[in-house]
Amino acid sequence: MFVSDCLGINSEGHLTIGNYDTISLVEKYGTPMYVMDEHTIRKNCKAYKEAFEKYYNNNGMALYASKALSCLEICRIINSESLGLDVVSEGELYTALCVGFPAKNIHFHGNNKTYRELKIAVENNIGRIVIDNICELDLLNDICSKMNKTCDVAIRVKPGVNAHTHEYIRTGQIDSKFGFALETGEAFNAVEKVISLDNIHLKELHCHIGSQIFDIKPYIVTIDIMMEFIRAIKCKTGFLVKELNLGGGFGIKYINDDIPISIDEFMKKILLYVDKKSKQYNIEAPYLYVEPGRSIVGEAGITLYRVGCVKNIPNIRRYVSVDGGMCDNPRYSLYKSKYSVVVANNACSKAEQIVTIAGKCCESGDLIQEDVLIQEVKQGDIIAVLSTGAYNYSMSSNYNKIPRAPIIMINDMKSKVIVKREEIKDLIKNEI
Amino acid sequence: MFVSDCLGINSEGHLTIGNYDTISLVEKYGTPMYVMDEHTIRKNCKAYKEAFEKYYNNNGMALYASKALSCLEICRIINSESLGLDVVSEGELYTALCVGFPAKNIHFHGNNKTYRELKIAVENNIGRIVIDNICELDLLNDICSKMNKTCDVAIRVKPGVNAHTHEYIRTGQIDSKFGFALETGEAFNAVEKVISLDNIHLKELHCHIGSQIFDIKPYIVTIDIMMEFIRAIKCKTGFLVKELNLGGGFGIKYINDDIPISIDEFMKKILLYVDKKSKQYNIEAPYLYVEPGRSIVGEAGITLYRVGCVKNIPNIRRYVSVDGGMCDNPRYSLYKSKYSVVVANNACSKAEQIVTIAGKCCESGDLIQEDVLIQEVKQGDIIAVLSTGAYNYSMSSNYNKIPRAPIIMINDMKSKVIVKREEIKDLIKNEI
Repeated sequence: MFVSDCLGINSEGHLTIGNYDTISLVEKYGTPMYVMDEHTIRKNCKAYKEAFEKYYNNNGMALYASKALSCLEICRIINSESLGLDVVSEGELYTALCVGFPAKNIHFHGNNKTYRELKIAVENNIGRIVIDNICELDLLNDICSKMNKTCDVAIRVKPGVNAHTHEYIRTGQIDSKFGFALETGEAFNAVEKVISLDNIHLKELHCHIGSQIFDIKPYIVTIDIMMEFIRAIKCKTGFLVKELNLGGGFGIKYINDDIPISIDEFMKKILLYVDKKSKQYNIEAPYLYVEPGRSIVGEAGITLYRVGCVKNIPNIRRYVSVDGGMCDNPRYSLYKSKYSVVVANNACSKAEQIVTIAGKCCESGDLIQEDVLIQEVKQGDIIAVLSTGAYNYSMSSNYNKIPRAPIIMINDMKSKVIVKREEIKDLIKNEI
Repeated sequence: MFVSDCLGINSEGHLTIGNYDTISLVEKYGTPMYVMDEHTIRKNCKAYKEAFEKYYNNNGMALYASKALSCLEICRIINSESLGLDVVSEGELYTALCVGFPAKNIHFHGNNKTYRELKIAVENNIGRIVIDNICELDLLNDICSKMNKTCDVAIRVKPGVNAHTHEYIRTGQIDSKFGFALETGEAFNAVEKVISLDNIHLKELHCHIGSQIFDIKPYIVTIDIMMEFIRAIKCKTGFLVKELNLGGGFGIKYINDDIPISIDEFMKKILLYVDKKSKQYNIEAPYLYVEPGRSIVGEAGITLYRVGCVKNIPNIRRYVSVDGGMCDNPRYSLYKSKYSVVVANNACSKAEQIVTIAGKCCESGDLIQEDVLIQEVKQGDIIAVLSTGAYNYSMSSNYNKIPRAPIIMINDMKSKVIVKREEIKDLIKNEI
């Protein structure tokens, strides 16, 4: 019925998450609020881990893409589920290290890592630094030489496949700020250069083809391209790259029209195909990484708001204003992202009216969703926006000087704060 | 030469702001960094104030729209220039009150003020609460009655004019989350209702027609509509609304193609026209408010970044990656906003190449500007993005867990920090 299995309706007609009454959460913690279901996060982690065990002889690891949602508790959960981590900044790395996340299981990404970030990564013996460009490689080599340390790296390759939802293209993706192009020879040159360096060890090839992808086909095409590249490197240099990282981008269910493949099915197809290609090329099957972010935490989260004004403009639109907005969820403003919305205190009624959910920011474009089907809704109601676990808190701002909402975690019918609500006085803490 | 008068080039060929060498600022404070010129902010404030004095018998006040940039020091400057303030949240109000901003000169805006916000506004005797909708009016009346207090209000009217840059439309703007529609009789009903209430005093009519507007015409049309409404209210009820607020939206110069009218010229035309209409209708000229935000701080600010990787994709694009991005300036991602960009350490060279300025966030859409003309640029250079004083810091986030950049104020050849750089440890301060 709902886009996520962790959601339900209790006997009072209230929306539940992890069987916990969302209305009692509102009474306890106020609005707006992000809520997450720990069981769902762990279930998703296990699905990746078990797929590697079942279909690939446990010869790989899922790295959680922490840019989707990075905080101490999420890092703890990811580590306890034996997944690795993909970080993209000093801040994300710091967060992981604060909870004792094993550095060897962390990959450091980014198109423009600073000198300081690279130095910290080397100092902390991070598992892999994913080299994006030649400037960075030179910088890293310099850092390693000065520190008399070695470091294990991946090379980020543009495979020439660009996928989004149900569509993908095989050309043009050379126009990206990320990585080395394959077709120009740039990627091969980078590989040769890394192989020649003493302090930098090439362990892995990395690629990433897009976001919120539902189709397996572009991944299959990408595997063809990357395995062929591994084979070509071996032929030309004798060097076998033993690890392959297929990136992330696995789609989740925001609305009922979204039909993602299950993690198990997705991984099965990918893993068996990599194995098949390895046998075909007569090379050792690479240790495989994938980098799920959204598909671990996205469907595990919802946002709860209180409805203020309901403004009906006859024959035009019904605006339902809530006590949050683009400050806590900028994805509609940025990408026109679709979401499902439910009146949490009246979730069992039939959704029969079309409304526009407006935020409270002083900007016409501050909308959470336009023309969405919802139950009868009035001032004081609580509405839930679903599948907000990824890229909502992590992209949140203090626009209009609105404090950031807390994150509440539900587990085993208990709730706990994992990120506290920002206080008004926090908003001026750095002002002089 | 540059889009803002506060910018120049010194003998070393470095970009200056308020005659201060931007490269020495980088040496002192690091990158990325917002820099603002206090003289420009004060000059813009004075231009509004003087226009009221020269053209309108000082019978009005500019209210700085603090959503453009709200911090303690900006509130101090605005107050010392005898401007009022428009706030849109408890956070912006708190910031203003922290520096002793006179409550009587503060207007409280927003389409969905919370009960708590309205209560705080009443408790603090805020100058005007701008009523957006009937739910809010009822809520406010309830609060005032319970507290046995009165409160002065404005009513936000949708004048049916929607303006943006050089275009405007006179219909359709009824479809907005803000205010009461004029043509449906909704605005008039709200006026009648407020007049009937004991604790709530109608002082002002408010309207706002858009953002970044260069044309005077839509304001003239709006004045016609609003003055006619004041006249109609007087005819029908005998009540004369004595104050009119024309909102903000005055355009600034982001790129050389932008040709804004000067504040003086703009205000002169508006003020003389309101005066003319008052005489025509034989009503007392209303006390007039305008709400400039962008036009006070926008051109006073720049952002300085250090260039990391420069990635040339032959025949396609040259990506120049900087150490900030959509986290400190989301306006290109949100609105495809145009900006001018300068190599600050080589500002006297001719801009002869087209590049794309990419941020360091791990997202393809994290671009600051596409296809912008710039000087020769290489790794380690400092680039300045111009006219970033408004809606940059205020919309900034910690996406990718990147700490927010500081704001440095330049005045009289001295620099001072007005907002400190966020520290890495700040990023987890609310996490448990």
